Order: sequence, then C-alpha cells, then structure tokens
Amino acid sequence: MTGSITGVGVGPGDPDLMTFRAAEAIRSADCIAFLQADGRPSRALTIAAGHLPAGAERLPIGMPMRPEPAAGQAVYDGAARMLAARADSGRRVAVLCEGDPLLYGSFIHLLERLRPAHEPDVVPGVPSFLAAAAAARLPLVRRSESLAILPGTLGEAELARRLAASDCAAVLKTGRHLPAVRRALDAAGMGKNAVVVEEVGGMRERICPLDGLNADGLPYFAIVLAHRSVAR
Amino acid sequence: MTGSITGVGVGPGDPDLMTFRAAEAIRSADCIAFLQADGRPSRALTIAAGHLPAGAERLPIGMPMRPEPAAGQAVYDGAARMLAARADSGRRVAVLCEGDPLLYGSFIHLLERLRPAHEPDVVPGVPSFLAAAAAARLPLVRRSESLAILPGTLGEAELARRLAASDCAAVLKTGRHLPAVRRALDAAGMGKNAVVVEEVGGMRERICPLDGLNADGLPYFAIVLAHRSVAR
Repeated sequence: MTGSITGVGVGPGDPDLMTFRAAEAIRSADCIAFLQADGRPSRALTIAAGHLPAGAERLPIGMPMRPEPAAGQAVYDGAARMLAARADSGRRVAVLCEGDPLLYGSFIHLLERLRPAHEPDVVPGVPSFLAAAAAARLPLVRRSESLAILPGTLGEAELARRLAASDCAAVLKTGRHLPAVRRALDAAGMGKNAVVVEEVGGMRERICPLDGLNADGLPYFAIVLAHRSVAR
Repeated sequence: MTGSITGVGVGPGDPDLMTFRAAEAIRSADCIAFLQADGRPSRALTIAAGHLPAGAERLPIGMPMRPEPAAGQAVYDGAARMLAARADSGRRVAVLCEGDPLLYGSFIHLLERLRPAHEPDVVPGVPSFLAAAAAARLPLVRRSESLAILPGTLGEAELARRLAASDCAAVLKTGRHLPAVRRALDAAGMGKNAVVVEEVGGMRERICPLDGLNADGLPYFAIVLAHRSVAR
C-alpha cells in the first residue's frame, strides 16, 4: 500500500492548456487538494473540473486573506500533515496548482514540509507568462538574449536594477504596482513597446500597450511583457 | 476558404507533457511543418507522433548544420513563403515547436516574416526549464524572488553580471560552455547548490549537482538550475 503526493500544474487558466500528464494525475487521484483563499472558489479546481474523479475526496486548504506570516505558516503545516496522513494510508493525492507548481506556487511551501519523508512528484505546467506571450503573439527571447521573470512587488529601484541586466522581461503580480513597474521599465529602456496582458485566457482577457494605460483597477495578476528597445 | 498558420508548442520531450490544445491543433491540421536540422529526425515531430493526422502533408524545413547567417535567413524566407502559400489556399498549417514557440523558438523567425499578412496563432507549451525543475523537484522562485533565464552562450562576464541581478537562474544551452557557466555562477554566489539536468524526460535523463560534475560530453541542451546561497 504505497500512497503518493503529486503537485499538478494545471496551466494558466484555459482547461485545454492542461497537459495530458496533469489530466491523468488528476483522474487517477484518490484525493484532490487545492488552496482555497478566503473561502472563494479555487481557480485551479475550476481549471481541472473536467477531469475530477467522481469518488475522490476533496481537500480544500483554507487560507485566510492576507494572513499574518505565522498564521500562513500554520495553514501549510496543517495541510502538509493532512496530505502526509492520506499518503501514509495508501492514497494518491493530487495537489492542484495554477500555472506551474515550482514557479511562485504555494505548492513549494508544502513540498518543503513534506520532504524527505513524503517526497512529492511534480507535473510541470504552462506558466501564465508564456500564455500571455502567446495571446499577444509577442516573441520573448531568441539566440543569446536573456529573460527576467520578476514580481511587480519588488519595488521600483530593485526592479530597475534587475531589468537593466536583461534583454526581455515578464513582470508578474503588477496590479496596483503598475506605476512603479512603468517607471522601472522606462529607466531600463524597456517601457516603449511594453504590452500588458490581463486575465489571460479568461472571458475578460485584454491585451494593450503599457503606454497610456490607465492602471486603475488593474488586476493583481496582470502581466507586463517588455523588451529593451534596440534593433534586434 | 480561410487557411491558418499556428505555432504549436509540443513541450519539452515527453509526449504526455503536450497540452490538449497542442494535440488538437496538430490533429486538425492539413499540413505539418517542422524544422529539420541537417537531415536528422525532427525532435518536435517525434514528440507529436501520436497526434499526426494520417493524410496531412509534411513540410520539413531543412536547415543546414551551423549555416552562414545569410543561408539561415534564406531558409526562413523560403519556409515562410511555403507556409503562406498553404494558408492562402485555405489549408491549416501547424508548425511544430519544441518547448514553447516564443522562448528561443525558431518559430519566431517565421512569425516575423509572416506577419501581418498571415498573422499566426500561437499555442504555448511547457518549457524545458520547468520540466527540469519538476524532474529535480527543485523550487524555483517564491514571493518576491526573481528568475533569470539565460543562454550559456552569453560568455562568463555577461552571465555573471546578469546572474548578480537575480535570485534564481535557469541557464540553458550550456554544453561545452559549462566551465564559463560554472565560474559565472560561482562569482554570483550561485554555484554551491546548482543542479544540472541533462536530457530531461528522455531515456538518458540525468540530474546531478554542478559541484564536481565533469563537463566533458555534456549535451548542448543541458540545463543548470541555481539559487543564490542565502537563507530563504
């Protein structure tokens, strides 16, 4: 009786951007775990809806909105114990993760707590920044160019420093940080042709130039894609 | 009679890391195009083998090994004309791309030639660096950390400069550049816990620490994953 725990990347939002391996990991699971922030429906669960086995146990991991650090840690501690107990009793647990589990995924917090006794498997997924580039049909990097993946939460000065050391950038988690992101991109010579992608793959997907964009109400998960403005 | 051209990311190598959308784009295509370097079998075609429609026309894009720049450009010029002609006659063309089409993909060279008259669609794919992180079960970035995706061909000094502006790095196209990559990682304080992933998803997949690795015969597509060695 050997159970398992698998972090399953379900991709950026469109169910058809899930991989065959992700779908199979979900279909063959006995327990389906997912993060549930502040009682809202889990986006990863919605993406995976077409593949959930009828009899599987659902394991929501309830996370309060903007938890104190200690409270957030306690949630992951409890969730890891819950998943480990399921695996110990021989069950296969799939942990649903938006995008890719190891790229800004909460799954990392579980992985760190589960290893080495319950070393999880990981199914990679299509990350949101690549779905955004595809939707905008925007080439990212070629040949000897480099790409920086940066959270908009880094602050203007640190963003500018890191942008200066790259040819291309995907800035995630922008939302209300957009003014600082814009100034950092301008300082790094990347503001001119930057593109903002909101709600990629969703009903309200919107792709527009950063130049002139009104940042009011921009979703937290809006992605800015930018290149240094030189001849390529 | 409206044809179309779609760049289809088939993922890093395992056929089950292809997305449903990629498989459907291939299955519904009238023509299947793929880069064929120096007459060798196309890896993207091998990955997609289970989904190729029986009656579809195959369009190899023959690329000589290490072409002169002008010769390489001429190949893309001719290929773009060939794809445009198929689309103009109402056919649906799928261009197979390893990994993701817009992340170091040759598809970028076709996209630039086809637009705006034949604006292609793009199906994103799981990139090799995420498959490598999943295989190594190595968390990449969390919270406010940033990730640099760098080609090992950049040279030691430029690599070190760019690594210094990131918390985590995926260095692609390492192969014979590994000694320079190693020195750059050491200079940036990232060498200590770095991991090398060769042939991810393949029969000869190998995951080992960078520390002490003999670089002789390392494949060109070996990937180094590295973090700054600080408490997280």
